[in-house]
Amino acid sequence: MNILIRHALLGDEEKDILILENTISRIASNIEEPADKIIEARGKAVFPSFFNAHTHAGMTLFRGFGDDLPLMEWLETRIWPYEALIKEEDVYWGTKLACLEMIKSGTTFFNDMYWFFPAVARAVEDMKIRSAVSAVFIDQFDDNQAHEQIRHNKELFGQMEQYSSRISFSLGPHAPYTVSLKSLKWARDFAADNDILIHIHLSETEDEVQRFVKVYGKRPFEYLHEIGFLSPRLIAVHTVWLNELEMDLIAENGVHVVHNPISNMKLAVGSNFKYRELKERGVNICLGTDGAGSNNNLDMIESMKFAALLQKFSYNDPTILPALEIFNMATCNGAKAFRLNAGKIEEGKLADLILVDLNNPSMVPGHNHLSDLVYAAHGDCVDTVICDGNILMEDRKVEGEEEILKNARKAAFDFISRKK
Amino acid sequence: MNILIRHALLGDEEKDILILENTISRIASNIEEPADKIIEARGKAVFPSFFNAHTHAGMTLFRGFGDDLPLMEWLETRIWPYEALIKEEDVYWGTKLACLEMIKSGTTFFNDMYWFFPAVARAVEDMKIRSAVSAVFIDQFDDNQAHEQIRHNKELFGQMEQYSSRISFSLGPHAPYTVSLKSLKWARDFAADNDILIHIHLSETEDEVQRFVKVYGKRPFEYLHEIGFLSPRLIAVHTVWLNELEMDLIAENGVHVVHNPISNMKLAVGSNFKYRELKERGVNICLGTDGAGSNNNLDMIESMKFAALLQKFSYNDPTILPALEIFNMATCNGAKAFRLNAGKIEEGKLADLILVDLNNPSMVPGHNHLSDLVYAAHGDCVDTVICDGNILMEDRKVEGEEEILKNARKAAFDFISRKK
Repeated sequence: MNILIRHALLGDEEKDILILENTISRIASNIEEPADKIIEARGKAVFPSFFNAHTHAGMTLFRGFGDDLPLMEWLETRIWPYEALIKEEDVYWGTKLACLEMIKSGTTFFNDMYWFFPAVARAVEDMKIRSAVSAVFIDQFDDNQAHEQIRHNKELFGQMEQYSSRISFSLGPHAPYTVSLKSLKWARDFAADNDILIHIHLSETEDEVQRFVKVYGKRPFEYLHEIGFLSPRLIAVHTVWLNELEMDLIAENGVHVVHNPISNMKLAVGSNFKYRELKERGVNICLGTDGAGSNNNLDMIESMKFAALLQKFSYNDPTILPALEIFNMATCNGAKAFRLNAGKIEEGKLADLILVDLNNPSMVPGHNHLSDLVYAAHGDCVDTVICDGNILMEDRKVEGEEEILKNARKAAFDFISRKK
Repeated sequence: MNILIRHALLGDEEKDILILENTISRIASNIEEPADKIIEARGKAVFPSFFNAHTHAGMTLFRGFGDDLPLMEWLETRIWPYEALIKEEDVYWGTKLACLEMIKSGTTFFNDMYWFFPAVARAVEDMKIRSAVSAVFIDQFDDNQAHEQIRHNKELFGQMEQYSSRISFSLGPHAPYTVSLKSLKWARDFAADNDILIHIHLSETEDEVQRFVKVYGKRPFEYLHEIGFLSPRLIAVHTVWLNELEMDLIAENGVHVVHNPISNMKLAVGSNFKYRELKERGVNICLGTDGAGSNNNLDMIESMKFAALLQKFSYNDPTILPALEIFNMATCNGAKAFRLNAGKIEEGKLADLILVDLNNPSMVPGHNHLSDLVYAAHGDCVDTVICDGNILMEDRKVEGEEEILKNARKAAFDFISRKK
């Protein structure tokens, strides 16, 4: 389908935008070409849609199920006993709820790690959103589990042809404290051989880093560098506890890092994400929401504000991480990490974009629409969402919303009752 | 007008709520009494509305007009030169925009300090919201200015009869670095004589405290205690830089404090609000958004999440400031400080309440509606707002919204062009 968006505010100018198939084909003051669909966008501003660089989408089923608890108590009493009982169909509806929430707040891509890969992929297909999907890879340092995980991942990778180009496969070794060195090395080689990404939690807490040092004799990034694990194929999530050398290694090896400010604050990880030091080194920094268990939503607009303000507060400097930089973290930096020709409103880019309603009170008076989007608005300012040239939301309406809410609710309460 | 709300979820139970005039008259499982208006609230949860304990409402006109700047550069280049040109009608529309935004995110009371008291009061009347209004009292240590401010405040106080009971008068001495000791003493006495509140910025930055010590020889709360300034009539805003003795004095004198987490983070005030220490002392702690210049919105739901997470992060403790405590800060604690019999859904309380749409995706699946409201939702989950027994919003529609947006936009761009 070809789409012509008319009179959208792009920066300070009103522009028409022609989308041919899945690509932004032309941007000009007045486009007269015919299109299958015309969107009148006067009073709306166009922005690239958001790239959520770290999620566990299916965990929307756990939203509000355990808050204000110490991390281990939360995991041991509220998450793990229930996750053990979760079924493929639950994950399908949980992921659809997550996709719905993301679309309604302007996100068209998410980098996911969760159980039941096929359920996640099916939800992504059905919602017409983009995703880099990885299965949780945990072997608990057990050879049999490692063997089974490797077999499972090879199988999933072999089945990728069945999916559209909107879905890519990543490896998801959970973290060095749940995955053996042997499996990490396998992931390193499999990712290199097939040129795919690795999605892993690294250096989220001090305790985790200390335990790593005890086992491997070095800090995580130092050791991982020695075994050749660091590369532009690595998406390192959290990376809160880093020393100078580790930041150098991240930069030198082109590792992409993902900051999750809300999750870091809610779980009290104990240190600030070192934005200034990583930026100075030229590291590609992306933004993520993390799962609804530790956030509890998937609104990238909210996460932009949290990230920008947390840096200002932590560095005691109101000028650090200004609006445009955090907006880039949430858009083009994510697109770059995940190898998508998107994240900017330019001719030739993928048609992944949003229209923001300038009549949302938080966007008024409108001295600076980008500032308003980052610092004043929430997801509900997003009126229209287009991904890969498909309209996922128009006038804030997403197809099938009621059914998703109903079934996600049912799935969430069902798996809890299974425990009882 | 009498209102019957039917089938609203109150905690875990579906209840009917009868509002007679401006009061919650009855709460029961099935109320059959006739009413002028019946609201069918199945699928919605009822909560008290929010009490925003610190605003400069008219500053919505400055939203996005200067971000990511050092405090003094921001004030000197983006705020003061323009505020000097602002007119009464500008403040009227700016405050109406603020009221609109607050209503749309569930707030029915705000504690304001700004220029043109009559414009603020008129906006509050027209929007049918509640407010404690104070005029900015700054004398710059100049006797003539002090004299004029005192005259002006006496005059405003003398005119309060013209307003409804939804509006109360407070004194608004801006801060000890802009107001002379003589004027502070006058405020102390005038407030005591008339039993009214004092709304003042105190101990927001370290620099401000150091300057106070240089001038007065003691830290702010120590000195203010000595001159009898501390009392339950005092609403002390920010109170970030406090020592142990000052916290004792705040508690012993029944001073109410207002935490503004987003403003503190954005302006990088350099220290964490000492929630744990103040709570242990039994201090009544309220929540505010501050003005749109330093936030940049007036969404108390967002501020609840920021406050809760900032404490967890700062104390490195995920259990501190749990959902119910921050919700109380945003509701009943504010009502208490401002002497309103409100902030809870109970018979006999003022009918200041909201209905939250449980079909907002952020409220699904709905394991814990209070947690979802605090940690997952934004203002747009609020469907209906009632204040003083009047319906201010229903189905997210507020009367006169378009006109407010249009005129606030015009006012904002007009006063900027006046400068050019």
